[in-house]
Amino acid sequence: MPAKELIKYLQAHRDEQLEQLFELLRFPSISSQSPREGDCLACVERIAEHLRGLGFSAELRPWRRHPILLARRACDRPAGRLLIYGHYDVQPPDPLEQWQTPPFEPAIRDGRIYARGASDDKGQLFAHVKAVEAILATRGELPLEVIFFVEGEEEIGSPELERFVTGAAAELAAEFAVVSDSDFFAAGLPTLTYGLRGLAYVELTLAGPREDLHSGVHGGAAVNPLNAVARMLSGMHDERGRVTLPGFYDDVVELTAAERRAWAELPFDKAAYAAAIGADPAGGERGLPVLERRWARPTLDCNGIVGGYQGEGAKTVIPASATAKISMRLVPNQRPEKAVESLERYVAENTPAGVRASVKVSAQARPVLTALDSPAVAAAKRALKDAFGAEVALVRNGASVPITELIQRVLKVDPILMGFGLPDDNLHAPNEHFRLEQFYGGIAASAALIVNLAGLARDAQGD
Amino acid sequence: MPAKELIKYLQAHRDEQLEQLFELLRFPSISSQSPREGDCLACVERIAEHLRGLGFSAELRPWRRHPILLARRACDRPAGRLLIYGHYDVQPPDPLEQWQTPPFEPAIRDGRIYARGASDDKGQLFAHVKAVEAILATRGELPLEVIFFVEGEEEIGSPELERFVTGAAAELAAEFAVVSDSDFFAAGLPTLTYGLRGLAYVELTLAGPREDLHSGVHGGAAVNPLNAVARMLSGMHDERGRVTLPGFYDDVVELTAAERRAWAELPFDKAAYAAAIGADPAGGERGLPVLERRWARPTLDCNGIVGGYQGEGAKTVIPASATAKISMRLVPNQRPEKAVESLERYVAENTPAGVRASVKVSAQARPVLTALDSPAVAAAKRALKDAFGAEVALVRNGASVPITELIQRVLKVDPILMGFGLPDDNLHAPNEHFRLEQFYGGIAASAALIVNLAGLARDAQGD
Repeated sequence: MPAKELIKYLQAHRDEQLEQLFELLRFPSISSQSPREGDCLACVERIAEHLRGLGFSAELRPWRRHPILLARRACDRPAGRLLIYGHYDVQPPDPLEQWQTPPFEPAIRDGRIYARGASDDKGQLFAHVKAVEAILATRGELPLEVIFFVEGEEEIGSPELERFVTGAAAELAAEFAVVSDSDFFAAGLPTLTYGLRGLAYVELTLAGPREDLHSGVHGGAAVNPLNAVARMLSGMHDERGRVTLPGFYDDVVELTAAERRAWAELPFDKAAYAAAIGADPAGGERGLPVLERRWARPTLDCNGIVGGYQGEGAKTVIPASATAKISMRLVPNQRPEKAVESLERYVAENTPAGVRASVKVSAQARPVLTALDSPAVAAAKRALKDAFGAEVALVRNGASVPITELIQRVLKVDPILMGFGLPDDNLHAPNEHFRLEQFYGGIAASAALIVNLAGLARDAQGD
Repeated sequence: MPAKELIKYLQAHRDEQLEQLFELLRFPSISSQSPREGDCLACVERIAEHLRGLGFSAELRPWRRHPILLARRACDRPAGRLLIYGHYDVQPPDPLEQWQTPPFEPAIRDGRIYARGASDDKGQLFAHVKAVEAILATRGELPLEVIFFVEGEEEIGSPELERFVTGAAAELAAEFAVVSDSDFFAAGLPTLTYGLRGLAYVELTLAGPREDLHSGVHGGAAVNPLNAVARMLSGMHDERGRVTLPGFYDDVVELTAAERRAWAELPFDKAAYAAAIGADPAGGERGLPVLERRWARPTLDCNGIVGGYQGEGAKTVIPASATAKISMRLVPNQRPEKAVESLERYVAENTPAGVRASVKVSAQARPVLTALDSPAVAAAKRALKDAFGAEVALVRNGASVPITELIQRVLKVDPILMGFGLPDDNLHAPNEHFRLEQFYGGIAASAALIVNLAGLARDAQGD
């Protein structure tokens, strides 16, 4: 439990914490937009200044389009090393007209900070910075060596990040790692995420006639690549909603009985979820609970079909080709390369006469599953419980966060996915916000985590 | 057979005919582009001037976006009335960079006139104008009352044309009608078209989640409208390539043995056709000849799918909705309304849980089949044979030409589809062209047709 002075310090400095976060939120650090390169740089430089002010050696490493900040603070008798990951880039704010207040002019309403990046990820990242500050202010020293790894291309998919992590593996080496870029399962329910799905994203192209053809003149003779791609996509699921690609489920690890029981106890209301997404959650494999389908089962989703005519009204065209964008979400122990092979095998066996198929891989990420019962997880649970005053849920998530798999596989440490957001924070959407109580609670939780992990490391050294 | 003087007149005036056609081809009368409204008007006004110069009363009737030209030339002792249809509007010339010479600067190369609209339809329409001129110049009088009906919205689908034709039915009434907006089956093979397919164009929309969802977070729970639309499209054909919509084939008139024999004798080479379209013509119903599949069998083709992400690279989205654009080509005696009903019935029975389906009708046209053995067809065959010096083929075509069905149904006269184009004229594509021999031959054929039809009408009156 954080010491009393630390709690007092945090409470006494809330206005300042908020004002400094607002300053970061004013940078329109949109990584996907070239004209914002200067804003991205200014934002990460400001974070570097904060860390330098706390005694960190903070360096901006030039990277593809936006630099990566590496900052480190040694200490006299470190119990171990903690890697803290965050990102300073944000999604574009469009559509602008749907924001109640401008996305880069942070505003408080109903106990929430409204701004692009408030929850994803500046607010969550800055909570760690302020936790470090509070520990230093009250103890004069950090009990662990802390390394900040702050990237600026998360919102464009962290391309080539493996190359960076591999190259900087020695500098990033740590006994502990924490990633705060996720959310609570529900308000009032502090949450650790111990599993993420992987991804294989492919484009299946069927090439037919040399050029787009008139569907009247040639319809019935030319094979229509759109008809054909619909048929092939349709064949990728059976009547029970299972993926039919050969060998697709071979490496799927079934959910354990313990996990299934734990998930059944989560406060998940199917009707409320249906209302939230605006549709009956009847997708995926028949007969399985919604959370299992979202978190522990692989999927195959078409994300778009290119070819023919997408404009208004009618155009009677048989397109020269059709391309289906397909994302497969993968679960332990599936591998993206094997999923792609399964799809390629299916394509080879199911391409109709009159079209030629090709498959292009756009993105791949492995699934992540971390230990549920490690001392680090126990330390994180205690930190969250102390900071937010409630028992902690352990969940998985259906999405992928590229850095987590790299931390596990390249740096060989299980990342602690301790997010402070809430499910209704409107990430990537207008009116993104971050609750004040989550921000302040996040700072306290981060400080407690650092202290707990240091204790853990000392105990281990004492053994 | 046209009289000798007429032939002499035509040959003596070839330069003038060509120069005047060039003048029409220089108008960029692109009906789909608002800034071209003035060019469309100037083009049709020039055609009206030509006809007024030949003693026609020519009026521009204001219509939706581009006026319709109605021109009439009475004569002293008319044997009957002939309606001649054509259109002065053209397709956009894009992509411009693929034209060898600018699309609106006509140029002659290898005996071909290169320009947008050369074949479709200014060259074919103007052949009739020049035929009338030649008859008047050599005989002093037309043997028939001739009515020109020249529209400017054919390339945008002749919207609402039924309303116009119905309103002007008395003025358009005629014993004969000719439409020259088609082509020979092959070079050297003059062709009459006696059948066209109809069309029902619908948009099937499947609505799922309220907003686009993240395919990682919600994949496996939310029903994906793109997956669902692919499945529904796939189910619309069986393994043999037949359309499965309930009752879809109920009203299909089977090809007669005589037609099948006649088509088998056409100079159609499947390998050459495959080379021309750049793909194996393995579409449509298994086991039927290519021409039968293109001309006499109905089809269902997806022309585009809207929803999700069509840009470059990966976006992991479950779209809020997906819309399939679907064109059904119909054959006698199918009706577009019944085809739409079939599709709606299929949709009602096959929409999966989790999405809501709706069907919107974009366009409808009935199939056309005209008598093969009428005296007018015989007259047209003689005219074509005399003008081009070869036996005439009778074919159908898989496309729809809206005016033909209106002439047949509203004006109650079988249109003669006597086209002068060739299959490789590059209609709607870069480097559209019209062969000089087809233009000059078309003028002679039109003149012969007028003379032959007049003779026919006189014979009928004599009965």
